[in-house]
Amino acid sequence: MSIATWFSDRVRRLSAEDAAFVAAIKQITGGIPHNISLYRLALRHSSTSSGKEVTLGLNNNERLEFLGDAILGAIVGEYLFKKYPLKDEGFLTEVRSRIVNRESMSVLAGKIGIPKIMDFNTRQKGALYNKSMHGDAMEALIGAVYLDKGYRFCQSFIINKLIGEHINLTDLLATEGNPKSRLIEWAQRHGGSITFEVVSESGRDHHKEFAIQVVYNAKVIGTGKGMSKKKAEQEAAANALQAMI
Amino acid sequence: MSIATWFSDRVRRLSAEDAAFVAAIKQITGGIPHNISLYRLALRHSSTSSGKEVTLGLNNNERLEFLGDAILGAIVGEYLFKKYPLKDEGFLTEVRSRIVNRESMSVLAGKIGIPKIMDFNTRQKGALYNKSMHGDAMEALIGAVYLDKGYRFCQSFIINKLIGEHINLTDLLATEGNPKSRLIEWAQRHGGSITFEVVSESGRDHHKEFAIQVVYNAKVIGTGKGMSKKKAEQEAAANALQAMI
Repeated sequence: MSIATWFSDRVRRLSAEDAAFVAAIKQITGGIPHNISLYRLALRHSSTSSGKEVTLGLNNNERLEFLGDAILGAIVGEYLFKKYPLKDEGFLTEVRSRIVNRESMSVLAGKIGIPKIMDFNTRQKGALYNKSMHGDAMEALIGAVYLDKGYRFCQSFIINKLIGEHINLTDLLATEGNPKSRLIEWAQRHGGSITFEVVSESGRDHHKEFAIQVVYNAKVIGTGKGMSKKKAEQEAAANALQAMI
Repeated sequence: MSIATWFSDRVRRLSAEDAAFVAAIKQITGGIPHNISLYRLALRHSSTSSGKEVTLGLNNNERLEFLGDAILGAIVGEYLFKKYPLKDEGFLTEVRSRIVNRESMSVLAGKIGIPKIMDFNTRQKGALYNKSMHGDAMEALIGAVYLDKGYRFCQSFIINKLIGEHINLTDLLATEGNPKSRLIEWAQRHGGSITFEVVSESGRDHHKEFAIQVVYNAKVIGTGKGMSKKKAEQEAAANALQAMI
């Protein structure tokens, strides 16, 4: 039996709702899901849980989001490590964060049609959905793909389908975008001011370590450490961006 | 030819220094290194580089540390995800951070003998080494093992050798240790005071998001976001711990 026959045969035996769901997952991931319930779980936001389930967090996508986030970081990290053999770890960290940040994941979720199947699968049809829910579900879906199809398949899904089809690395690299300059731009858009302050300086000569805090409108919004002021500032700015945006 | 014969034959053809290094790596990882230079690179701290090398960061372990950190996070994340099927993502995040944090990695590096081979391999014999260098090299070594031996081998190295032989999960779970209480303990040891302040509150009903900042002796040392004050506080405390310790 060919895979196509096996697939259509299997789909025939599913309920109409399940069949539509399986087809949507196949469209997104490029693979036929084995364990459908994993994917359903990935697309189930915590707003659908109630009572004890909320406390346990077991009947929504939060555990899978934890797993997917970790797998995504590793796979994108390796991809960039190999793609840019002459770039240092600061570059790799920055480019990865531009690919995997919450906003970027939410945009990606929109592009591949996650909001549609999240709604489809959600008991609270009228619930308020925001972008971060879609990004979280995107990560949870990666966790589900990893568990259902293994590391290699998940790697190919992330590199070829997600990054390959939806993220333009050339554009991403061309945009002005170290964390410090992005944070300053962000502050300007919001009419506030950003300053970087040295909190502490330790060690000596080539073994110095600086701790920097970012202050936005008289509030500290991020801290960072590094062997140079520049590195500590970038880390502090990256942390501030993550906390504020 | 048996593996043992092949190994001893191969070692015979190495210089005495390389042979000792290969034996040390085999002792640590349980596997015979194919690409010795990867492991040498993993154990080469940036203090050994000079001039342009420093700028590029290519002849020290910083790129491998980036990769190893990502792989470690994914493998430990999956391990905990499967080991604790009834625990929520907050628990998983917390336990993982207790395993992979800088201090824990440095202790682990000491236990498996990394400081000894770092010294052995370092041109600046008299240089000042601190614990974080050992933890960084520990992560870089994981990156090298991953590249040299693949995902499955690296997974087994981390789970069976590192965690299995050196980390007592029962003790680790028994210690009082959510980030908030650890931060408060830390502040008490240093004679300072910690307060948690709500920076902002957005959304409504079940979709609220809180932003919290941690203040230590009138300085903000960390920020965090979450769907409850409690979660945002834990995240802020975890960020503060990472920045301060």
